[in-house]
Amino acid sequence: MRMAELSAQSGVPVATVKYYLREGLLPPGERTSPNQARYSAAHVQRLRLIKALTDVGGLPLASVGAVLTAIDGDETPHRTMGVVQEELAGPAPKVSEEAAEWATGLLEAVVRENGWKWHEPGGAAMDNLVAALATAKELGQDKLTERLGEYARLAVRVAEVDIGVVAGLTSVDKIIEAGVVATVLGDRIFAGLRHLAQEQVSREVLGGGASPKR
Amino acid sequence: MRMAELSAQSGVPVATVKYYLREGLLPPGERTSPNQARYSAAHVQRLRLIKALTDVGGLPLASVGAVLTAIDGDETPHRTMGVVQEELAGPAPKVSEEAAEWATGLLEAVVRENGWKWHEPGGAAMDNLVAALATAKELGQDKLTERLGEYARLAVRVAEVDIGVVAGLTSVDKIIEAGVVATVLGDRIFAGLRHLAQEQVSREVLGGGASPKR
Repeated sequence: MRMAELSAQSGVPVATVKYYLREGLLPPGERTSPNQARYSAAHVQRLRLIKALTDVGGLPLASVGAVLTAIDGDETPHRTMGVVQEELAGPAPKVSEEAAEWATGLLEAVVRENGWKWHEPGGAAMDNLVAALATAKELGQDKLTERLGEYARLAVRVAEVDIGVVAGLTSVDKIIEAGVVATVLGDRIFAGLRHLAQEQVSREVLGGGASPKR
Repeated sequence: MRMAELSAQSGVPVATVKYYLREGLLPPGERTSPNQARYSAAHVQRLRLIKALTDVGGLPLASVGAVLTAIDGDETPHRTMGVVQEELAGPAPKVSEEAAEWATGLLEAVVRENGWKWHEPGGAAMDNLVAALATAKELGQDKLTERLGEYARLAVRVAEVDIGVVAGLTSVDKIIEAGVVATVLGDRIFAGLRHLAQEQVSREVLGGGASPKR
């Protein structure tokens, strides 16, 4: 297909497609004349993936590049997913050393209780989790951090569904792409479902609109 | 306490505290002389909350303002949480009409199966969920969307823990603040735990680092 058709099928404007080509995020098409190239279904899929990473995942283009490089590389699915999770997490917010130490200890206990292997220290996903727990502590939200074990056990159940989504696939390339999509979209989808569910549960427990605050 | 102490206790730089005061995100202190004011523990807590919303929640300052206005307002906890969820969700990415319709239908089925009330249409949280599902569909990730019912049932379990975190509190102000914190930090904490859990499950199912891709 030509550029116009590629843009229509992917929903990405022509100017943006050209920008992605220049930046190397999208591989070049097959040249058919000095001014024209032919693109394939693989180009459409790659553009949709970039769109998902930027629009839904909220990733900056530099992170999208890192994720695509990992997808196209020779790493195992497991290691590729590690790169994706690092890019999704982004840099962790700064917290006080004391709170960070407390949060790391809490997390170590949960990891131990669940029989997990401790993630390589210093990873962005882990740093972000520690920062979020430390922030809850600094805000005096002890009830939130007290339930960490319960959240962890439910997270395992969710992760089992996640891995089930990709484990049935046969091609390694497909596993990796599905894993990336499941991670990027999966966080958004689960957060959305959780908010919907909170809405339902809070209507019952906290009362819909009956009692005003004052 | 003086400004310097307020900055030290909250971990927010003096220049930023002054900016928040000018923008009305932080209420003024009690003036003790033309050039000095005294601040209280409530100011420290408010600064920590702003820090959590911006640094961990990733909210822009305009959204932080909307959330704080909702917290300080006369709405019920239930409605205040609605404002928070809208601000957290942000504007939904654009997807094709066809995919959005399909995603809405899928979501309606899940809502019906779970006996939930349908969320007010047009809410940002719902729009974002529809956009994420539509994007999965466009990427051909049917295995992900096929498991939506399983994710929804686990989301209810997580929401029950969430609401349990706030339901034990007695003051309405505390319920609202805890709810805001649980929502903002809770999404990050659960996503972090899920990634840790995926790491563990994928090590077993997909293989740690043994088999290279090619």
